[in-house]
Amino acid sequence: MRNINDRDKVLKIIGNNIRSIRTCLNLSQEELAFKSGLHRTYIGAVERGEKNITILNLIKIANALEVRVQDLLDLDKEEDK
Amino acid sequence: MRNINDRDKVLKIIGNNIRSIRTCLNLSQEELAFKSGLHRTYIGAVERGEKNITILNLIKIANALEVRVQDLLDLDKEEDK
Repeated sequence: MRNINDRDKVLKIIGNNIRSIRTCLNLSQEELAFKSGLHRTYIGAVERGEKNITILNLIKIANALEVRVQDLLDLDKEEDK
Repeated sequence: MRNINDRDKVLKIIGNNIRSIRTCLNLSQEELAFKSGLHRTYIGAVERGEKNITILNLIKIANALEVRVQDLLDLDKEEDK
């Protein structure tokens, strides 16, 4: 990552990846929070790209979404405008 | 992750993935620290599985090793005994 807006861009793409998988599964943020053992407001912040999430929390979310953690890290997608 | 030793196991596997790629590239921890913009002692702790690393730091390490961050997250490998 070369500079700050890469940083924000990366976190937004990861957040969007989580949100799109969650909505595909028809899960609410509340349900994802419960399944992952994380707080709903934290899930919301992660989806908005506001959290530099740790790898263990990312794995908890991946497990709850029943995907591999790698699937949340497809950084080639464009962030939502 | 079901319980605490999963947590330690995951961090150790990620640390081993980083170390094996770094040594394949004949990079010292010092050189990886310089290339990633992180401290050498932090790199050592990550490689020992002692750090619940954030995704942005993991991406910095992946960039420095010139691999995709997904490549550091192959959790199917056995941790070194």
